[in-house]
Amino acid sequence: MTEAYVIGAGQTPFGAFPDESYRSLFQRAYESALESTDGTIDSDAVDEAVIGTLGVGGRQLGLSGPAVTEHVGLEGVPCTRVENACAAGGYAVRQAVQAVRSGMADLVVAGGFEVMTDMSGDLTKYWLGVSGETEWERLTGTTFAGVYAQMASAYMDRYGVDTEPFSRVAVKNHANGAKNPNAHLGFTCSLEDAEGGAPVADPLNLYHCCPTSDGAAVALVASEEFLEDYDGERIRVAGVGASSDPVGLADRDTYTGIPASERAAETAYEMAGIGPDDVDFAEVHDCFAIAEVLAYEDLGFCERGEAPSLLENGTTDLDGDLPVNPSGGLKSKGHPIGATGTGQVAEVFKQLTGNAGDRQLDDPQRGLTHNVGGSGGAAVVHVFERVMAE
Amino acid sequence: MTEAYVIGAGQTPFGAFPDESYRSLFQRAYESALESTDGTIDSDAVDEAVIGTLGVGGRQLGLSGPAVTEHVGLEGVPCTRVENACAAGGYAVRQAVQAVRSGMADLVVAGGFEVMTDMSGDLTKYWLGVSGETEWERLTGTTFAGVYAQMASAYMDRYGVDTEPFSRVAVKNHANGAKNPNAHLGFTCSLEDAEGGAPVADPLNLYHCCPTSDGAAVALVASEEFLEDYDGERIRVAGVGASSDPVGLADRDTYTGIPASERAAETAYEMAGIGPDDVDFAEVHDCFAIAEVLAYEDLGFCERGEAPSLLENGTTDLDGDLPVNPSGGLKSKGHPIGATGTGQVAEVFKQLTGNAGDRQLDDPQRGLTHNVGGSGGAAVVHVFERVMAE
Repeated sequence: MTEAYVIGAGQTPFGAFPDESYRSLFQRAYESALESTDGTIDSDAVDEAVIGTLGVGGRQLGLSGPAVTEHVGLEGVPCTRVENACAAGGYAVRQAVQAVRSGMADLVVAGGFEVMTDMSGDLTKYWLGVSGETEWERLTGTTFAGVYAQMASAYMDRYGVDTEPFSRVAVKNHANGAKNPNAHLGFTCSLEDAEGGAPVADPLNLYHCCPTSDGAAVALVASEEFLEDYDGERIRVAGVGASSDPVGLADRDTYTGIPASERAAETAYEMAGIGPDDVDFAEVHDCFAIAEVLAYEDLGFCERGEAPSLLENGTTDLDGDLPVNPSGGLKSKGHPIGATGTGQVAEVFKQLTGNAGDRQLDDPQRGLTHNVGGSGGAAVVHVFERVMAE
Repeated sequence: MTEAYVIGAGQTPFGAFPDESYRSLFQRAYESALESTDGTIDSDAVDEAVIGTLGVGGRQLGLSGPAVTEHVGLEGVPCTRVENACAAGGYAVRQAVQAVRSGMADLVVAGGFEVMTDMSGDLTKYWLGVSGETEWERLTGTTFAGVYAQMASAYMDRYGVDTEPFSRVAVKNHANGAKNPNAHLGFTCSLEDAEGGAPVADPLNLYHCCPTSDGAAVALVASEEFLEDYDGERIRVAGVGASSDPVGLADRDTYTGIPASERAAETAYEMAGIGPDDVDFAEVHDCFAIAEVLAYEDLGFCERGEAPSLLENGTTDLDGDLPVNPSGGLKSKGHPIGATGTGQVAEVFKQLTGNAGDRQLDDPQRGLTHNVGGSGGAAVVHVFERVMAE
């Protein structure tokens, strides 16, 4: 069985880009990934492509994968679109890893994209809503923020906390994103700012919600065989885990955790032969601040109910023992749905190869990515390890 | 590297089922696949699921894979939705093969579904149109039938034939489908009937077009390791090939062939170590009759321009040397988009294990499936071989 490696990754800035299309954004991300290999890789080397997108806006509902790969000159290459709502990008990376490990491809483009800022608020609400459950959530009027608000309420009730942990997520992630030139919301905020945000879905306020963004991100996944003739940077895909769960929140076992995340992490840790204590930093799915709080506990970074203290004592700050979302996360960096999971991998690649600029961590050896679909109907976790170039 | 096998497959009837939902149809197909293993396999054995659907009707646009797997008790199992328009099901099978060969799963559910008959004609036209190119085809008013009509016109012009070859496809596939209890349009028709159908998109008439259908189909893909403790029927996945191409017809190299099909077949033949002459029968993508004509040539069953003579001399009839679409194909069996590719595999499994009833072929050893996305933006080909149960 060949191992899989990421040998390059890149992304567009995340934000609002009225002059770009989904194709031009994908092209910019793809070129950025190729550039990250110091220009040593070009399209001729690509054996396969896997593209994650929810298809927000319905621009090209069918064949949206080939529609972007043809635009960058990859026509002819096998291309599959994958969709698991907000985890589409993470699953694209996972499928690329399977393609490589299957022996059917030596270099796979794992990409993701979304264009979300060119539509009305009602249409945005619709396209976010389709990532939740249809009959009992969206069609009953429950917004996507409303689903996470129910999880936030349940957490506050169970552990006797207020909204301060959510606000601390915002403060930390905006501080990190302010150091990331690709961040959509690259401003800093105070705890007072974050506590005083306008209500969105009680108890979540504006500072507890990520933006909707345009953007694309691409990772290049290669086999061991490919690396025999390649001298550039690479990080090893040490662990991969995924799990599903009922799409509707009411059908799950708990409101104060995401069981799919917990199972995905267990699988990824087992494959990597490590535990959560061995992770040096993580990019986690903070679509709403409560999601980052739950992630700490689902991923085993602390016991149940202890996530607020990790935020309070600075453990997950950029200079803490376990930095979480050094990129700024979905909260500050942005959340162009299909691009989010591949964008997380781009951040880990940059951190593990020492190319993360002002937000570079101190010599990290191992990074984790965590991408959630909907409110937890799907989750995917990857563990990446630094490898010295030969 | 482990090989991949199909150890069970089943489907719902294809047709119009106003009392069924996409979830209930998937459940029936899944149970049918489990039953095909003589009840020796249950959900506890399943490691992963890959679900193909275009999402026609927009019932659950996000997380439509987990939405059906949770319904059959597979919550917790990693589940990925794949979409490559009408080839979604074939790509689901291909991804299941990669999952098995990657060593990350020993038994994978490859499923597909679609519900298409509960909407207005305009809405059906929209949802078929999204499988074509958006800006230069759908939004300019070109219907999906219209795209294939352009290919039919080009073929007629290049080779100096009339619509008779298309009508012969209809006659043959309806004759086969009449022997298939799962067929949507299980009636026979004469060449005179087929030549006299009402115009749809000139030169294609009603008999040259497949119906829109509801349905689901599931194949169970297993590893060699899984088979060590399994005594039931199995067929070997000998070859897999896929390719992409520009989504819009006008951007392709030819109108009288589907280059993605040709490349996908080359890859599948090479992996299987065979040529087209070694194929005993095939299930090909005949969404419109011209598509079956092109498939004969793209798959190497004959030289360019010779497909009409294969139809005229009965080579591809049920009792011919190379039966094509013994199930009735999309034309008669039906075309519930996401289920079509997995339904093809269900037919091949039945034929190779001697369970095809009135349409059973005489001791076939090797069968091919060919599934096309859109008008050729994606194509996937599988070669399956009979294996004696131990």
